[in-house]
Amino acid sequence: MADWKEIPGGVTAPRGYQAAGIAAGLKPSGSPDLAVIFSEVEAIAAGVFTTSQVRAACIDYCRQRLQGKHSARAILCNAGQANAGTGEQGWLDAKLSAQVLGETLGISPNLILLASTGVIGQRIRMNALTAGIPKLVAELSPTGSDAAAQAIITTDLVTKSIALETKIHDKIVRVGGIAKGSGMIHPDMATMLAFVTTDAAVSPQLWQQMLSRAADRSFNAITVDGDTSTNDCLIALANGQSRTPAITQMGAEAEKLEAMLTAVCQHLAKAIARDGEGATCLIEVRVSGAPDELSARKIAKTIVGSSLVKSATFGRDPNWGRIAAAAGRAGVPFEQENLRIELGDFLLMENGNPLDFDRKAASLYLEKAAADSVVSENLLATEISNDLVVDRIKIKTQNLDNPVTIAVSVGNGSGSSVAWGCDLSYDYVKINAEYTT
Amino acid sequence: MADWKEIPGGVTAPRGYQAAGIAAGLKPSGSPDLAVIFSEVEAIAAGVFTTSQVRAACIDYCRQRLQGKHSARAILCNAGQANAGTGEQGWLDAKLSAQVLGETLGISPNLILLASTGVIGQRIRMNALTAGIPKLVAELSPTGSDAAAQAIITTDLVTKSIALETKIHDKIVRVGGIAKGSGMIHPDMATMLAFVTTDAAVSPQLWQQMLSRAADRSFNAITVDGDTSTNDCLIALANGQSRTPAITQMGAEAEKLEAMLTAVCQHLAKAIARDGEGATCLIEVRVSGAPDELSARKIAKTIVGSSLVKSATFGRDPNWGRIAAAAGRAGVPFEQENLRIELGDFLLMENGNPLDFDRKAASLYLEKAAADSVVSENLLATEISNDLVVDRIKIKTQNLDNPVTIAVSVGNGSGSSVAWGCDLSYDYVKINAEYTT
Repeated sequence: MADWKEIPGGVTAPRGYQAAGIAAGLKPSGSPDLAVIFSEVEAIAAGVFTTSQVRAACIDYCRQRLQGKHSARAILCNAGQANAGTGEQGWLDAKLSAQVLGETLGISPNLILLASTGVIGQRIRMNALTAGIPKLVAELSPTGSDAAAQAIITTDLVTKSIALETKIHDKIVRVGGIAKGSGMIHPDMATMLAFVTTDAAVSPQLWQQMLSRAADRSFNAITVDGDTSTNDCLIALANGQSRTPAITQMGAEAEKLEAMLTAVCQHLAKAIARDGEGATCLIEVRVSGAPDELSARKIAKTIVGSSLVKSATFGRDPNWGRIAAAAGRAGVPFEQENLRIELGDFLLMENGNPLDFDRKAASLYLEKAAADSVVSENLLATEISNDLVVDRIKIKTQNLDNPVTIAVSVGNGSGSSVAWGCDLSYDYVKINAEYTT
Repeated sequence: MADWKEIPGGVTAPRGYQAAGIAAGLKPSGSPDLAVIFSEVEAIAAGVFTTSQVRAACIDYCRQRLQGKHSARAILCNAGQANAGTGEQGWLDAKLSAQVLGETLGISPNLILLASTGVIGQRIRMNALTAGIPKLVAELSPTGSDAAAQAIITTDLVTKSIALETKIHDKIVRVGGIAKGSGMIHPDMATMLAFVTTDAAVSPQLWQQMLSRAADRSFNAITVDGDTSTNDCLIALANGQSRTPAITQMGAEAEKLEAMLTAVCQHLAKAIARDGEGATCLIEVRVSGAPDELSARKIAKTIVGSSLVKSATFGRDPNWGRIAAAAGRAGVPFEQENLRIELGDFLLMENGNPLDFDRKAASLYLEKAAADSVVSENLLATEISNDLVVDRIKIKTQNLDNPVTIAVSVGNGSGSSVAWGCDLSYDYVKINAEYTT
C-alpha cells in the first residue's frame, strides 16, 4: 500500500539534521532532561500548539516566532519543569534560553524554537540549563536522535521514534519524528511534545497546511484522560537537503509527502496512546457512515475517551452498551436505528438491535490484544501504597499493530475517521493520586 | 436567606400525591425494583430528557406523550433493565407497561409517564413487571416516597430525597423530589433519574421553563465520569392541590416557586455527585468573572470533570496546576493573567501567578472535607480482586454541606456558576472493570 519504507534514525534520519540529549540536572532524578534538534541549514518550520487558554511560556514564544518567520535552525527542549503558570518570569526564562543557545551555536536566537515539559508552575532551573547548553551542543551528532528522544520523556515507559523514506522526483526523501507523553497524564506534568524533521523541499504555507491536517489525523485523534496539556506542541522542520525541486502546491508529490508525514505523526500518536499512564492496551476506534470526517472523529474520540469504555476494556468486558451510549452523546446527530458496532471480528449490534455473540470469546479477544501489545516486559517492582498492590511493569517494546479494534457505523454518510486511546486501570488512579505533603 | 424550610416526605410531601415501591423480581438480587408516583388529580407535567442519540424506549415514550399533552397522573419506574438499545421490542414493552398500569389504576394510559434504569440492551422482564403492577398499586400510600426512592436505585449507596415548604399567597406550597444514580456510573447501567412533585398551581409552559432552568443549575451541572446516560430523565408534576391561584407568568410568586424547585433539584444533584461510584467526597467548583453564566458553567464542569483534578483530590493533593489546566481547556476564552484560584480558604494563584501557600494544611483541608462528608459509615467487607485490596464502605448518611470547594475567577465578566462532582478513586475503576464471562 504505502510506497515508503521504515528506516532507523528518528529525527536525524533525514539529511542535514543533528541532535543531542544530556542530563543537565533539571530533573531531580538525574535522568536526561535537555535535548536539541539542529538543522545544518535554515529549515522551513511549521507548528501546531495547544489550544488551552492556560499556556506555557514556550508555546507563546514559538507562536510569536513562527508568526513572523517561517523558518528555524534549532529546537531546544527541556524536561523537568513545564514553565507553565509562571507568569512574566517564565517568558523571560524562555527568552534567555533561546539567547544562550543562539550564542553557543553561533546563530540568531530568532532561529530557535522552544519546548518544555514537567511540573506546571515551576520555573526552569535556569542555572542548570545555561550551564548545560554548551555541553549539549558539544554532543550534537547526526545519530543523536535517540539521545534527544530519551531526554524529552518524563513518566513515559518507552521513547517514541520513527523514520520513513520514499522517493520524490527520483530522489530519496525522508521524514523522521520523536515524541513524548500522552495527553496530560502525570501529576502536574504537561506533556505532549512531538518533533518531526524532513529533508523534503517544501514551501512554508504548504508545510504548515500539511502539518495541521496530519495533526488532526494523528495527535488530535488520541486521548488518554481528556486533559489537554498547557504545553502540547508539534513542531516540524523541512530543510530541503533531499535536493528535490521545491513542492509549492498540492499534487502527486505533495500528497506523497503529506501521506508520509501523516504516517509519521500517526505512529508517534499511537505510541503515546499505548503508553498512556497505567494503560495495558491500545484501543483503535474506527467510525464510518457519519456526515463528514470531523463528525466521525468526534464520535470516535468520544468512544475512545469514555471512562466506562476504558474501564470495561481493562476488565476485558465486551460491553457494547457503553460504546453505543458514548457514540450517542458525542454531539453528532444520527438515527440509533442505523447503529452498527463491531469489536474485533465480533458483530455486537446491527440496525440498532443487540445481537447474540460469544461473550467469552470476545473477552478473550480483548485479553489477547492486550497481551499482544507488549513485545517484552520486565517487572520492576511490586509497590504497596494506599492499600493498593500494583505490579509496575516496565514495557520495553510496544507492538502497535494489533490494537483492540472497535468499528462503529452510524449511517450512510461518507465521513469516516479513526481515533486511538487506551484502557483505564487502577494504575492511572494510583499514578495520579500519589501525593506526599 | 431562603424563605422555605425543609420537611420530611419526599415526593409525597406535597398534597395530593401517593407513591409505592416493591420488589417485583426485575433485579436478580431481589431488591426493590418497581416504583410508582401517583397524583390524585391530573397534574401539570414537565420533563427534561437525555440529549443522547442513543436513547431508552421510555425516553422517546415520555417525549412523545409530553409533546401533545402537558399533564400526567402517574410515573412508573423500573430498575434492573434500562430498556435502551432494545429496538422496536423495547418500544412495545414501554407501551404495554403504560397500558397495564392504566388499567390497574383505572386511568388513561396517556396520563402515564415511564422511566427505566439498569442494564443497557436488556428488555424489561415483562412477566415480572405486569405481575408486579397490581401489587404495586395496592401499596400506594401518602407516605410511600421512601419506598419509591428505594425501588429506583441500582448501585447507589443511599437513597436521595428532599422536600421543601414555603408560603405563596399565604398558602402552604411544597416541592418534593427523589432521584437515583450519578451520571452513567455502573457497568451497563443507565442511570440518572429524578422525580419532582409540587402542589403548586402553575401553567404548563411556565412549569416547563422553570424545570429547564432548574435542570441547568442542578443536574446539568454535575458530572461523575463524563458519560451521559441513555436513560437520563427529570420529570416534575404540579397538581395545584395547594389551592393557590395559578401562577401563569414570571413575578414574585413564580420566582419563589422556581427558587424552591431549583433548591430541590440542587439537593438531589449534589446527593448524586457525592454518591458517584467510588467517590470519597463531594467537590464544588464555583467559577466567576466569566462572560456569562453558560461560559462559567462550562469552565466549572470541565474542572470538576477532569480526571486529573479528581485523582488529585482523591490523593489529597492541592494541585492548582491541574485546576488551571482544566480551566484553560474548557473552550472559553480568557486571559491567563486574570486567573485566580482558591481551594477552601487557601489562595493558590492570583493574576496568573502561583502563590506560596501551606501545602500540608491545604492537603489536610481536603482530608477533612472528605471525612466530614460522611456522617456515619460501616465497613461492609474487604474484597480482594485483580490484585487490588479495597475496603468497600457503605455510606449510610451523606453530609452535603461541607464539600471540597474550588473557587476560580477568570476575569471581570458578570457570569458565574457552580458545578458539582466527586473524586476519582481505585473503586471507580474496580466497579467499572468488574466482569466475569
